[in-house]
Amino acid sequence: MSAPIRDPAEIYRRSFAIIRSEADLARFDAGAQEVVVRMIHACGMVDLADDIVVSPGFAEAARAALVAGAPVLCDVEMVRHGVIGRLMPSDNKVLCLLNDPQVREIASRDATTRSAAQVDLWAARMEGAVIAIGNAPTALFRLLELIDAGAPKPAAIIGVPVGFVGAVESKDALAADSRGVEFLTVKGRRGGSAMASSAVNAIAGGLEGHG
Amino acid sequence: MSAPIRDPAEIYRRSFAIIRSEADLARFDAGAQEVVVRMIHACGMVDLADDIVVSPGFAEAARAALVAGAPVLCDVEMVRHGVIGRLMPSDNKVLCLLNDPQVREIASRDATTRSAAQVDLWAARMEGAVIAIGNAPTALFRLLELIDAGAPKPAAIIGVPVGFVGAVESKDALAADSRGVEFLTVKGRRGGSAMASSAVNAIAGGLEGHG
Repeated sequence: MSAPIRDPAEIYRRSFAIIRSEADLARFDAGAQEVVVRMIHACGMVDLADDIVVSPGFAEAARAALVAGAPVLCDVEMVRHGVIGRLMPSDNKVLCLLNDPQVREIASRDATTRSAAQVDLWAARMEGAVIAIGNAPTALFRLLELIDAGAPKPAAIIGVPVGFVGAVESKDALAADSRGVEFLTVKGRRGGSAMASSAVNAIAGGLEGHG
Repeated sequence: MSAPIRDPAEIYRRSFAIIRSEADLARFDAGAQEVVVRMIHACGMVDLADDIVVSPGFAEAARAALVAGAPVLCDVEMVRHGVIGRLMPSDNKVLCLLNDPQVREIASRDATTRSAAQVDLWAARMEGAVIAIGNAPTALFRLLELIDAGAPKPAAIIGVPVGFVGAVESKDALAADSRGVEFLTVKGRRGGSAMASSAVNAIAGGLEGHG
């Protein structure tokens, strides 16, 4: 066996080349392709491309929001820690409020998950923000409810919760009516923190940056 | 459409029930089944069970190590943040040394990734530890090299790096010869931080705890 490749830049370069040669990316524009490639890189599955739904202006709007200094609001700490801070074009804040002391209280009051309760605390920062939900369907449902109730609209929603209860339904609800907000989602049960943060990283730094 | 389920305990209960009804778990013992169910829960794919390779004593050895107070050593911050601290039986340390100031220096000296360089810093804490590698094939290769060079043996290795360059080869190397250490891996390109941390959570708290 040949020695393993250890140079990080070379590992990224070869990985992206393999993904571009194997994945069917033809239906995505150039900006969305960078996002899809990075998401595939994060999960190891080239057929993920077939399940990705992205609104036509998503990549451009999300990039413009970051350039303008918008924060990234994440549903869980794993998403926040998957975002590569130095790729951010405007030293953007990447926030997860799950451990805010108010969250337990709201969750208990509303008989919901802490992830969903946290979304209530996003409202003050939501206008023009980039949302990254990788874990909790309840957070995505709550986000749509708050927008319906008149909360400020984010610039873009990355809505890729994973799992067996509510994930499919929450992502279908986003894709069916994103309330006029640019969005990206993954049909079906697949999703997760790594997919969410890799989409953010692609928007922030394209395929050039790595970490 | 009926209202989404929001109660976290009920979401976990239903999720695990769906997984047990759909996944083929017959070849795993009871302890390993809990690990496999949690890993499937983290990725949304019941067919992951078919690709999981686990040594016969893995779940028991990893659990005993945590009960005895062993640390969990993680290759990236995402894995560390996916571990649910309050499930730990002995208030165990969950560590990621990727941001240790020495790591950049070692990575530069050895022309390798920071993830792999970090493994050199694990040696002092490795004896009897639980290792959780969810991201970097280079970290898993380096771990095997260090054990071959006489480093203290961990109690168990969760080796599930993801991706297109080196991931398959590093996991095959672990499965072919785990150096006498109990291990869990996933054949193929799939893997990731969520799979690694969910395996740790299953060992720590079975399917009862949730977060």
